[in-house]
Amino acid sequence: MSSGWLRRRLLPGGPLPAPRPPAPRASPVPYRRPRFLRGSGAADAPRRRDHRPVRSPARGRQLPWDAGYAEIINADKSEFNEDQAACGQLSIRRCAFGTEEDQEWLTLCPEELEAVVEGLVPTHPPMNLSGRCVCPSDPQFVEEKGIRAEDVVIGALENAFRECDELIGKELEATGQVGGCTALVAVSLQGKLYVANAGDSRAILIQRDEVRPLSAEFTPETERQRIQQLAFVYPELLAGEFTRLEFPRRLKGDDLGQKVLFRDHHMSGWSYKHVEKSDLKYPLIHGQGRQARLLGTLAVSRGLGDHQLRVLDTDIQLKPFLLSVPQVTVLDTGQLEPQEDDVVVMATDGLWDVLSNEQVARLARSFLPGKREDPHRFSELAQMLIHCTQGAGDSPPGEGQVSYDDVSVFVIPLHNQGHGSSGH
Amino acid sequence: MSSGWLRRRLLPGGPLPAPRPPAPRASPVPYRRPRFLRGSGAADAPRRRDHRPVRSPARGRQLPWDAGYAEIINADKSEFNEDQAACGQLSIRRCAFGTEEDQEWLTLCPEELEAVVEGLVPTHPPMNLSGRCVCPSDPQFVEEKGIRAEDVVIGALENAFRECDELIGKELEATGQVGGCTALVAVSLQGKLYVANAGDSRAILIQRDEVRPLSAEFTPETERQRIQQLAFVYPELLAGEFTRLEFPRRLKGDDLGQKVLFRDHHMSGWSYKHVEKSDLKYPLIHGQGRQARLLGTLAVSRGLGDHQLRVLDTDIQLKPFLLSVPQVTVLDTGQLEPQEDDVVVMATDGLWDVLSNEQVARLARSFLPGKREDPHRFSELAQMLIHCTQGAGDSPPGEGQVSYDDVSVFVIPLHNQGHGSSGH
Repeated sequence: MSSGWLRRRLLPGGPLPAPRPPAPRASPVPYRRPRFLRGSGAADAPRRRDHRPVRSPARGRQLPWDAGYAEIINADKSEFNEDQAACGQLSIRRCAFGTEEDQEWLTLCPEELEAVVEGLVPTHPPMNLSGRCVCPSDPQFVEEKGIRAEDVVIGALENAFRECDELIGKELEATGQVGGCTALVAVSLQGKLYVANAGDSRAILIQRDEVRPLSAEFTPETERQRIQQLAFVYPELLAGEFTRLEFPRRLKGDDLGQKVLFRDHHMSGWSYKHVEKSDLKYPLIHGQGRQARLLGTLAVSRGLGDHQLRVLDTDIQLKPFLLSVPQVTVLDTGQLEPQEDDVVVMATDGLWDVLSNEQVARLARSFLPGKREDPHRFSELAQMLIHCTQGAGDSPPGEGQVSYDDVSVFVIPLHNQGHGSSGH
Repeated sequence: MSSGWLRRRLLPGGPLPAPRPPAPRASPVPYRRPRFLRGSGAADAPRRRDHRPVRSPARGRQLPWDAGYAEIINADKSEFNEDQAACGQLSIRRCAFGTEEDQEWLTLCPEELEAVVEGLVPTHPPMNLSGRCVCPSDPQFVEEKGIRAEDVVIGALENAFRECDELIGKELEATGQVGGCTALVAVSLQGKLYVANAGDSRAILIQRDEVRPLSAEFTPETERQRIQQLAFVYPELLAGEFTRLEFPRRLKGDDLGQKVLFRDHHMSGWSYKHVEKSDLKYPLIHGQGRQARLLGTLAVSRGLGDHQLRVLDTDIQLKPFLLSVPQVTVLDTGQLEPQEDDVVVMATDGLWDVLSNEQVARLARSFLPGKREDPHRFSELAQMLIHCTQGAGDSPPGEGQVSYDDVSVFVIPLHNQGHGSSGH
């Protein structure tokens, strides 16, 4: 993740509010470590610059599904891990939590969850939640549209991200705070794993013979056309300070009148244009790969928060270009017949900056089979993956690049899992 | 294709204009049959309602690459085939045409083609067409962006479609005509086949063991989120007459206050909402599959023309929702090592409404191998495919659905082909 982080938790610490009418919201609670890291020793120790421990839940403290977790604080950007983790099991409606989990993370948007429950009929959700028969052919309309129960879960996740973003916006405004974050969420429900991503974290499925991405990153580069399109429709968003066009490099005075490569919102290819004076402005999207920035500021194009964020020393807002909506992918774990070492790895960008999907898969496949008796092995794999981002001596050859960003990693085993939910 | 067709050709009949300055445009030429159908007998005969001949180029009249072609006029919407075909070979710069081809089809946007020529260096196109060295590391910037020669061809096709659309808009306005069309173009250049599609025609690659789509259809259903997003940003485009939201069926008064399935521009999934009065308006996108319509009017969401098209009896414009930009896919025919019966089939929606990709592939694979000596076999396959849309007696079992739309089909063999270009 990139810039402008939520320093404080914005969620109420109290009991779960009744779905309707909503209970009045408590004021934001301060940032704190994930509760499941309590008792892991280093977690509560004061932090020194040259002391960068990798933290995992203490042995004996089980996460749902025996999932593993590890994190490291690298970035020196803040006192805390910027990549904030949460994990829990939740029965919709009855809201039965584990005793020590981060309950407040799960209280978001109860109405969305409620809608899911009623829509989760065996094949197609009902057109009408009240059950009153307005049109006898409703089931046929729903079937013809191909609307399945999983589409209602996808819609609930999409709306939950948006509502969470609105909530954050209100609390930021009420408390005068600033900041934003990306979000990657995995929810297991009725034999399916839903992965919702808004930002540059990533989830992958690792099986013996296959590694499959479960999310795609949303950055100024991957969403270039959407962002340029908005600037085309609303040029005032750039306040005359930026050019919407993309060029292979920043143009300078000597380029004036030359015919150079460019692309605009409607193009996936490239073409040539005569350079005009307005093309010399700073580009809406500039830089390559990890250095790519939106309006010279943000490295991501989706996420939550950042309602007040502006380009340095200007009134140019970032928020209109940021989407809070996640992309949701669905993995049918029921059909997958997971084997003993099949896992989902969810991690923040600090990991993926230095390790490819294939490298992570190779490390998992070589690590897990020898440790099948160890219930802590998934946290150990998460730790090992983080060590590999530190150029550690035990990294395989060629896998010793160094990440200076904070990193959080979940390793979720898929074998023999029931129904439940986990969030990150 | 769907509604509102170009009844007249909008292109000049004169000699190819010099690239710069452009020659003054002649007035639109009237619609006529593709020249390569001359001498095919039925083509020039008067048309009777109960007489629907399938037309192909006469034996002995070769198209470039020995491509095959057939068409049928079904729709009774107009006197002519609405699905207008063209085909030719073209040397960029020298513009050497075959003697009898539809030259004027190839005179569009010469500047785009010119840019392609200069950008087509072996691997990466130059940053700067003038060749003046403004920045010595330009090649490095171009390489880091991953810009390849084929990206310049893609950009040229994207811009050519847009410029063609602007040109059509001007001529429609100048001549007081109305109409629009979709477009599917295949260009072979330097060992690659570029397929550009804006609308609901389709191209597929058929090989012995594989059938691969080379285009995707753009309809109100496939572009729902883009269209709803525009209506969200510019609600005045709906003039208070339509609802942006999608529901499984048209809502009615009895639904008021009920909680029903819906989705909005940001959702790929579905959710529930309480029905309000504004939800009872006619939906921006309504209907299913072939019946799906944009603003109750158009069955496609991309294409050329239709600049003046409005919803019946209103001032609500369709054009803002229509994109003229094609999606371009690239097939590396050099790497493909095509076998003797490998073909690309390009056809208008009338074919794909009743035959699936797999059915067309099966028909091609069973038809072609027995006729390798016949130079006319690709046109015969095109004819046979059209016969299958007529519920003909020789259709394989289960493949006898009937199309009432006009149909045009190109069958392009890939084996032993050199460089050139073909357009549809």
